[in-house]
Amino acid sequence: MEFRFSKKVSQISGAAIEEILKYAGDPTVISLAGGNPATETFPAAELGEIAQELLTKQPSLALQYNTPRGYAPFRELLTARLRDHDNIGREFDDLFIVTGGQQAVDLLTKVMCDEGDVVLVEEPSFVGALNAFRSYGAKLVGVKMEDDGIDVAGLEAALQANPNAKLFYTIPSFHNPTGITTSYEKRKAVYALCAQYGVVILEDNPYGELTFDGEKLPTYKSMDGEGIVLYCNSFSKVLSPGLRVGYAVGHKDLIQKMVDSKQTCDVHTPILNQLMTYEYLKRYDIDAAIAKMRVLYRDKCQVMLDAIEEYLPKSITHTVPKGGLFVWCDMHGDYDTREVAQYCAQRKVVFVPGCTFMVDDQAPCSAFRLNYSTMENARIVEGVKLLGEALRNFMK
Amino acid sequence: MEFRFSKKVSQISGAAIEEILKYAGDPTVISLAGGNPATETFPAAELGEIAQELLTKQPSLALQYNTPRGYAPFRELLTARLRDHDNIGREFDDLFIVTGGQQAVDLLTKVMCDEGDVVLVEEPSFVGALNAFRSYGAKLVGVKMEDDGIDVAGLEAALQANPNAKLFYTIPSFHNPTGITTSYEKRKAVYALCAQYGVVILEDNPYGELTFDGEKLPTYKSMDGEGIVLYCNSFSKVLSPGLRVGYAVGHKDLIQKMVDSKQTCDVHTPILNQLMTYEYLKRYDIDAAIAKMRVLYRDKCQVMLDAIEEYLPKSITHTVPKGGLFVWCDMHGDYDTREVAQYCAQRKVVFVPGCTFMVDDQAPCSAFRLNYSTMENARIVEGVKLLGEALRNFMK
Repeated sequence: MEFRFSKKVSQISGAAIEEILKYAGDPTVISLAGGNPATETFPAAELGEIAQELLTKQPSLALQYNTPRGYAPFRELLTARLRDHDNIGREFDDLFIVTGGQQAVDLLTKVMCDEGDVVLVEEPSFVGALNAFRSYGAKLVGVKMEDDGIDVAGLEAALQANPNAKLFYTIPSFHNPTGITTSYEKRKAVYALCAQYGVVILEDNPYGELTFDGEKLPTYKSMDGEGIVLYCNSFSKVLSPGLRVGYAVGHKDLIQKMVDSKQTCDVHTPILNQLMTYEYLKRYDIDAAIAKMRVLYRDKCQVMLDAIEEYLPKSITHTVPKGGLFVWCDMHGDYDTREVAQYCAQRKVVFVPGCTFMVDDQAPCSAFRLNYSTMENARIVEGVKLLGEALRNFMK
Repeated sequence: MEFRFSKKVSQISGAAIEEILKYAGDPTVISLAGGNPATETFPAAELGEIAQELLTKQPSLALQYNTPRGYAPFRELLTARLRDHDNIGREFDDLFIVTGGQQAVDLLTKVMCDEGDVVLVEEPSFVGALNAFRSYGAKLVGVKMEDDGIDVAGLEAALQANPNAKLFYTIPSFHNPTGITTSYEKRKAVYALCAQYGVVILEDNPYGELTFDGEKLPTYKSMDGEGIVLYCNSFSKVLSPGLRVGYAVGHKDLIQKMVDSKQTCDVHTPILNQLMTYEYLKRYDIDAAIAKMRVLYRDKCQVMLDAIEEYLPKSITHTVPKGGLFVWCDMHGDYDTREVAQYCAQRKVVFVPGCTFMVDDQAPCSAFRLNYSTMENARIVEGVKLLGEALRNFMK
């Protein structure tokens, strides 16, 4: 039988990400393509003890159905934490639990976008979010990133040109894929524009805690007097991605719609995983653990930046992240880094070609993304060295 | 700000299910409204031990990102089990892991249905699935259930009348909400019709193992020479619903689209939960555990049926399930069981009004659903007795 698939999903394919993951299992290839947090940051022993205790002492709670909104004491703890640490949450806001931050992106798109509605995105941007928007038949309009965040004039022009724009998607801190942090001035300008045009800001902040110098700029949500920001975050980068526990904060009318939709998607986020995260937060000092991660990733980033300076051709420019997991390099000129990536893969080093993160992901792109969080330092250096040799050969 | 929600989600509301769950926490109310498996069936100690061992011995695997398709050894084990136990799976089929059976319904709808496409459903049917279809703007066309399954002539008429029908959704064994089992003859007829009209059968089989007399009729998937059946099932009723681990089997082209879409929804099903289920299946005899559940639920069902005979007015008819968790009762006549439910709730007993399970969920319906799996036997009897008194008063 020839399946009559929906038009909206014909736009997306997992091929790009599968291509990235393909090499992850090959020990002879050095992958600078991933986005995984460092495995040594997972508090596995603590979580193991908590899991066993939960299943022994509260088996019905840990294994039975629960509510779509999430476990109430966990929601309360997160609400208080966000209020105290990040000045997030007002009278009109609510918080609910999602199955990883990705689900917040998916659900917000579902409740906001009919086919053909516009989602404004930073360009480049996180491919998982771009594909979520595409999967509902939304039209993507990209606005280019500058060193200090989005081109604000470009955003205003896009808002004017697209009255059916429903969302603006942004990763303001330690952006994926570029590592760029949006300046405070630009945050204020972007917020004002979105409020003026009635566009919801989807603020994705998975890397926000991973600041190298401890500086955290105010989030959009902390400025959100109008109730136009949907803030999403997760424990994927600061506890464990495999648990798939995230949360979203937004105006209660918006959250109610998302909760109703979640019910039809996966009923609720696995309750054991919520309880494990909740108990971990109660029993241990996650801020102390995060402080160690900041040092770990700062060092890894520096190792990569030093190796880039030493081994990559000088014509290739790169960002200097102040946090997060990624460096963005640009070969400039007519290069198509998809071809370059194939060439390098044969030489046992892989990265993600820039087109993956673009609205038009078929057009050639001269940039590419490198990741430094997953590997040991020596292997980062080895990988960048191999990459430098391959690039020099390719560019000859 | 006034949110401009998508048209498709304006069709759904979680209110019906929230109304049902509202009384679950009130200990003075006897709820015959739930659908939870009995908590005493959860192998909590075994799962606790497994969880701790996994987190101790395989921390990176258990806590790191994994693939959208699911953990490969788990997929292989399930594929072999379905082949050996249920004659499910052919050369062209594939299996992937979902975050509970509900996600398979959600993802299939997403990959198949554009707005306005038709989904054919048994009427009544599971509200979680109906809302999933509605949430993508699909048009529901209901075909009435008879004592031995769907009205086949009605299904054929609906197929003829709706050339844009993409899916037929069915729970062939121990149907929710009626408890009805579709006869083998009807399964053959329905399969032939769907193959003829090019409509995908979404076979939802969460209760299939919970057969009281051990009889399991052939699934649609076991007859599926054409590759038109998407079979979904989960561990929610035979291990734990809170873990949210399910699976779907279908033609590999269909599964590939669903995997691509899953990537944008929740990236992957929590890997610890997959590993816990996998290890449980390897180490313990789930079939022996299921055999005990069959006896448990058979007895509970009999307790409820006896109580119905004793306490409910004779004018109320009911189904006699051969498995599963539900009995369907009908008051007949002009009753609107939404009103009846409100009346009974004040008298400390609740059930789910029939309209909840209908395509037109606003029209009055004289039927209602009772659940017997969640409570102790004495409380089932007490609940039905209370219900009988309330109904007699209401019908005066």
